Amino acid sequence: MKQKIRMGMVGGGIGAFIGGVHRIAAAIDGEIDLVCGAFSSDPDKSRASGAELGLSPDRCYGTYEEMIRREKRLRPDRRMQVVSIVTPNHVHFGPAKMALQNGFHVICDKPLAFSLKEALALEKIVEKSGLLFALTHNYTGYPMVKQARQMIRHGELGAIRKVVVEYPQGWLSTRIEASGQKQASWRTDPTKSGIAGAMGDIGTHAENLAEYITGLQISELCADISTFVPGRALDDDGNVLLRFNNGAKGVLHASQIAAGEENDLNIRVYGEKGGLAWRQMEPNTLVVKWLDQPTQLLRTGVGNLYPEALAAARIPGGHPEGYLEAFANIYKNFAHCVRAHAEGRTPDPVYTDFPSVADGVRGMRFIEKVISSGKSKQKWVKM
Amino acid sequence: MKQKIRMGMVGGGIGAFIGGVHRIAAAIDGEIDLVCGAFSSDPDKSRASGAELGLSPDRCYGTYEEMIRREKRLRPDRRMQVVSIVTPNHVHFGPAKMALQNGFHVICDKPLAFSLKEALALEKIVEKSGLLFALTHNYTGYPMVKQARQMIRHGELGAIRKVVVEYPQGWLSTRIEASGQKQASWRTDPTKSGIAGAMGDIGTHAENLAEYITGLQISELCADISTFVPGRALDDDGNVLLRFNNGAKGVLHASQIAAGEENDLNIRVYGEKGGLAWRQMEPNTLVVKWLDQPTQLLRTGVGNLYPEALAAARIPGGHPEGYLEAFANIYKNFAHCVRAHAEGRTPDPVYTDFPSVADGVRGMRFIEKVISSGKSKQKWVKM
Amino acid sequence: MKQKIRMGMVGGGIGAFIGGVHRIAAAIDGEIDLVCGAFSSDPDKSRASGAELGLSPDRCYGTYEEMIRREKRLRPDRRMQVVSIVTPNHVHFGPAKMALQNGFHVICDKPLAFSLKEALALEKIVEKSGLLFALTHNYTGYPMVKQARQMIRHGELGAIRKVVVEYPQGWLSTRIEASGQKQASWRTDPTKSGIAGAMGDIGTHAENLAEYITGLQISELCADISTFVPGRALDDDGNVLLRFNNGAKGVLHASQIAAGEENDLNIRVYGEKGGLAWRQMEPNTLVVKWLDQPTQLLRTGVGNLYPEALAAARIPGGHPEGYLEAFANIYKNFAHCVRAHAEGRTPDPVYTDFPSVADGVRGMRFIEKVISSGKSKQKWVKM
Amino acid sequence: MKQKIRMGMVGGGIGAFIGGVHRIAAAIDGEIDLVCGAFSSDPDKSRASGAELGLSPDRCYGTYEEMIRREKRLRPDRRMQVVSIVTPNHVHFGPAKMALQNGFHVICDKPLAFSLKEALALEKIVEKSGLLFALTHNYTGYPMVKQARQMIRHGELGAIRKVVVEYPQGWLSTRIEASGQKQASWRTDPTKSGIAGAMGDIGTHAENLAEYITGLQISELCADISTFVPGRALDDDGNVLLRFNNGAKGVLHASQIAAGEENDLNIRVYGEKGGLAWRQMEPNTLVVKWLDQPTQLLRTGVGNLYPEALAAARIPGGHPEGYLEAFANIYKNFAHCVRAHAEGRTPDPVYTDFPSVADGVRGMRFIEKVISSGKSKQKWVKM
Repeated sequence: MKQKIRMGMVGGGIGAFIGGVHRIAAAIDGEIDLVCGAFSSDPDKSRASGAELGLSPDRCYGTYEEMIRREKRLRPDRRMQVVSIVTPNHVHFGPAKMALQNGFHVICDKPLAFSLKEALALEKIVEKSGLLFALTHNYTGYPMVKQARQMIRHGELGAIRKVVVEYPQGWLSTRIEASGQKQASWRTDPTKSGIAGAMGDIGTHAENLAEYITGLQISELCADISTFVPGRALDDDGNVLLRFNNGAKGVLHASQIAAGEENDLNIRVYGEKGGLAWRQMEPNTLVVKWLDQPTQLLRTGVGNLYPEALAAARIPGGHPEGYLEAFANIYKNFAHCVRAHAEGRTPDPVYTDFPSVADGVRGMRFIEKVISSGKSKQKWVKM
Repeated sequence: MKQKIRMGMVGGGIGAFIGGVHRIAAAIDGEIDLVCGAFSSDPDKSRASGAELGLSPDRCYGTYEEMIRREKRLRPDRRMQVVSIVTPNHVHFGPAKMALQNGFHVICDKPLAFSLKEALALEKIVEKSGLLFALTHNYTGYPMVKQARQMIRHGELGAIRKVVVEYPQGWLSTRIEASGQKQASWRTDPTKSGIAGAMGDIGTHAENLAEYITGLQISELCADISTFVPGRALDDDGNVLLRFNNGAKGVLHASQIAAGEENDLNIRVYGEKGGLAWRQMEPNTLVVKWLDQPTQLLRTGVGNLYPEALAAARIPGGHPEGYLEAFANIYKNFAHCVRAHAEGRTPDPVYTDFPSVADGVRGMRFIEKVISSGKSKQKWVKM
Repeated sequence: MKQKIRMGMVGGGIGAFIGGVHRIAAAIDGEIDLVCGAFSSDPDKSRASGAELGLSPDRCYGTYEEMIRREKRLRPDRRMQVVSIVTPNHVHFGPAKMALQNGFHVICDKPLAFSLKEALALEKIVEKSGLLFALTHNYTGYPMVKQARQMIRHGELGAIRKVVVEYPQGWLSTRIEASGQKQASWRTDPTKSGIAGAMGDIGTHAENLAEYITGLQISELCADISTFVPGRALDDDGNVLLRFNNGAKGVLHASQIAAGEENDLNIRVYGEKGGLAWRQMEPNTLVVKWLDQPTQLLRTGVGNLYPEALAAARIPGGHPEGYLEAFANIYKNFAHCVRAHAEGRTPDPVYTDFPSVADGVRGMRFIEKVISSGKSKQKWVKM
Repeated sequence: MKQKIRMGMVGGGIGAFIGGVHRIAAAIDGEIDLVCGAFSSDPDKSRASGAELGLSPDRCYGTYEEMIRREKRLRPDRRMQVVSIVTPNHVHFGPAKMALQNGFHVICDKPLAFSLKEALALEKIVEKSGLLFALTHNYTGYPMVKQARQMIRHGELGAIRKVVVEYPQGWLSTRIEASGQKQASWRTDPTKSGIAGAMGDIGTHAENLAEYITGLQISELCADISTFVPGRALDDDGNVLLRFNNGAKGVLHASQIAAGEENDLNIRVYGEKGGLAWRQMEPNTLVVKWLDQPTQLLRTGVGNLYPEALAAARIPGGHPEGYLEAFANIYKNFAHCVRAHAEGRTPDPVYTDFPSVADGVRGMRFIEKVISSGKSKQKWVKM
């Protein structure tokens, strides 16, 4: 009888958005049990949240420190194995560090930390711990994103020349943070988000997606960073020229004032032989364009896909999978590796693909460089 | 501390398709625990399937009869409350009847039964039992399908004049059942599927969707039913003219030989004032057309939707939800009602919407009439 | 120095819709000169219309009879060679007959005539005349429609099994003919349209498109024909089951009360090996689906197309061509053949493709059968 | 009897691409007659081209100088009124200057000239002449582009904040100019194109479209300009950050090595209240997004459009118009103004909208600045 991975959660109390997403993502594949949590910095709220989730009161903690200390004392076959961190950016580093230093694997929401400095420190802690660390750059969990990555890795498009990655949203077109909207409030608050607003919240997703799919690294960038909404403390829009380490060029733009846009992360990549296009809002199709052949619509259900893509789909083609399933793929692969770790096995390479602490450091470096470029009169800033 | 609903499952052993879908659907919202199962008619396979799912061996049963008998003897706060039936059509009636007669609520895959006769008998058993019965016509679980239904109910389109509902698939374009493909084999076998192939498997979904969205009933139909693949025992294609009880006309066609199509269930409805269009493969958009105004794209994230639609979405607009989430909405509403039933409460009307045994009887009647019309020289057959 | 083909026009005076379309279609390729016309049954209006078009007053006639008689007397190198007939249905037969009997080629708007009887008579007149006759079933002029036809002809999809052809419009959702709207008035008037409304106006386009693309013929049909708008004399909606001469099955539905639809003629064809889909409103893409390969988007600009398709495109891929260009392709091919006829040459086979009087007879037979089926209690009516 | 505008053409001999487009554009609306031409610098080829077009040999000239001199001597009611210039960039200035100085209106292909210097000189000549000058930035001829412009002008989107304009093509992904492909050859040749390749050929269209739709002007830009194909003398790709004169920000990127792309010019504009999106390859739809209302699909056939948009559509909604019709709208409005000029009338303001010599100067300035920015280490270059 297979044992589920036991997970504790930091943050994600009643009314939070991303905590609920993490819980669904962890639940979908039946590999992980949520067994405890410090769901809120308010102990009563933490307990109420846990009760709502069906957790016994003795495993609903008032602080993450308490959770980690008390879980550590439980029997090995009862205590949590993994800590999931779903707090705002300024509360990533503390629980991650403590969890790792107490022997718990960590899965953490993005961006990795409050600052590049924290991120680099965390990277060392992960390395030293020998434990597993996953960052939920969830968009890399989509089957068609994995297919895109494999196609490029296998040279199907030839050398990559151009990348266009966009992340337009419109929900911060007005100053909704002023009216106390919870999601908006911490994201526009420099004491919680760090130095960046839109660039940290969604710009890093775009950066991560571009590097993940192409297998390239951004080597230089030139940014124009703006705050359009009066009174807002952090950026809500950014346009960035990119240069990659193989000579490819690119454009990244992300916005939270693109009025009327929902969550339209999308990417196009062009190589010598062909190009591809993918949109998060219609994620089950990968458009592949060729110099001399008709455009193809790749889908999980028809034609041969790479094993990494197929392993990320749960149901036959034509049955759309979405955001939660992609998010769950991060958890599924992480759980696979945690299990292998626990059993001293080498994990199946098809399931080792999840964003790492190194990806998180890249993201924090991107944030630092893009904000600094935005303030610079110099054209190119090196990554 | 909230208790989860305890569920047992009939069918859905390793290698099955729809059983896994039901389990994910039940898991997503954290309302239901799978506690036992009779996953296969082969007891060893049932136990192996249960172990894989993390169930203790003493609650993995060899037959549904054994499951129902033994669970009934467990303490009320331990034994299953709900039986989920995910077997082929010919094994719906038996477990459903026995579960209901032993005090368990039932959630059952579609079509309701092997024949209309069985369906009518089951309807009576449900009524007599006072228990809850849900049929997983899962496509009605999509938020935008619920929105469509409410718009029509509230008269936004005026009186309905025309309905076009389609369900093209291509996966049975060749005789894959001859090579032992499991999903194809039972669906093309009259001893397991009943009198219909495509019309039962997917035609009923189309019929159900049309009646659900419009709130109308098909009153007469005229069908041309075909088997295109040589050697196949049941229909793999059907074209049907429809007449509705309010005078509206329509077309329903479903096919499993529509080469290259995945799972393209879709519907268009036209009223006096406007029309709407919805496609299962891009389920998060509802296209609404007007006589004198620009076409609108309704989405969960932008603009006002009816409460029934909003309650069926878990995440903000632009984060696509798919087949599994829609399926989970049937389970979510069913779980809500089971909980209310257990607590003697009236359920929240927003969560009472799931397909009933009466919908299942409609579906079985549709199967019987459409197959009989296909053989008839008479134009119209009454429903 | 190349001479243009000289054309006279019957109908199409100021305020008409389809006359202007014919004139643009004739002008686009610089092959045809409009030299005279009987643009209206009102001689003053005819002359005013001609003046607006830059025609000299002596070649603006009060009646088609006058035009044919007087043009015939002109010098051979001056008089019109071709008569274009763009009047309502009840004024097709008269001018077509007289033109042919006086040695003029004819290009005529569809449907061919007021009744099947007229159509059959006209077919004989055409045959006897040895002259050219084209019917402007303009949708067959699209490059991608020609590509679809050639793909099927060359067996790329295997034997055809299923055809779905639709022609939804919404502009007659209310009784606009009552307010004198010119286009609506004659189309809903049995004395001008004949026995059919929507079925004649757009149903025939759907029938023609299905037969053109598949190369098959409808052998039987079963129709449900409706008039939804109170007070209207002719049908405004029809749903039809089709059987083809090779055993394929199909559905045709056309409507002028599909509220909010513009002019969404579209077709899907499924064969043993693959399927294709085309939509008039996005005419430059042909979607081709395969059993085992990704869906392809065929476009004039990328990949190999059949010569008949390439010859029908004027500009490179990505520069959209539309309704007028497709319409012009009928005129272009017709002009090519008229020129070859005049010079005693065999025309280039790539340019001989335009709808013929035989296609027109098929259309009129379809109208008669579909209306009669709509009134019949018998299921199948033979074509 | 209405007289057509008489036009002569410079360039556009047999085998040219854009010359044929201009001729169709001039012919569609029946307002313009091509009466003469200097179709090629080779007099024999010029005459052969003219003959093919049905022109009499005495009006097929060997050079544009000859054409202008000899036409000038013809009777006023016979000689050309307008010169259409469709040669490569380095042969725009000469014929334009001479035509204007001899009393002929000019319509000229874009970009305006070979260099900014030439452009500025030409602007003065136009002003001095008192004659009409149109530049065929044809994409501004689309009805939905005009609608977008009017919506912004009337404040429907509020103050504009962000503009994204793209022009990806893939046809120069390999060095086809080396094999003598005529269109590629002159476009990649600095002696014919000027200092820019892709930026001049298509970048200017993007710049023009952005300024036309928004009514704003680019005030600063920062460009990364590349030549990806080895051996090519001019740029084939460029990514540009934009700043507008009202404080809006933007991105412009254009490419001829975006493998697999056809001609996908597209633009998105975001204001305080809403956003809009338009794509040249599906030009008949304007997507309009709102902060609080469902996305709308604006089309010529449904709902109220601005008069400028309606006047640019020839046929009812649902009958797609394309590239040629948009191009023809430039000619149609130009012809309207030429006629008014000839008759001493004020033209109808709805038909005065065509790109001017000032737009051409903007385009040439853009080319100069974008190429210079590409070479600069300084971040921002002022327009």
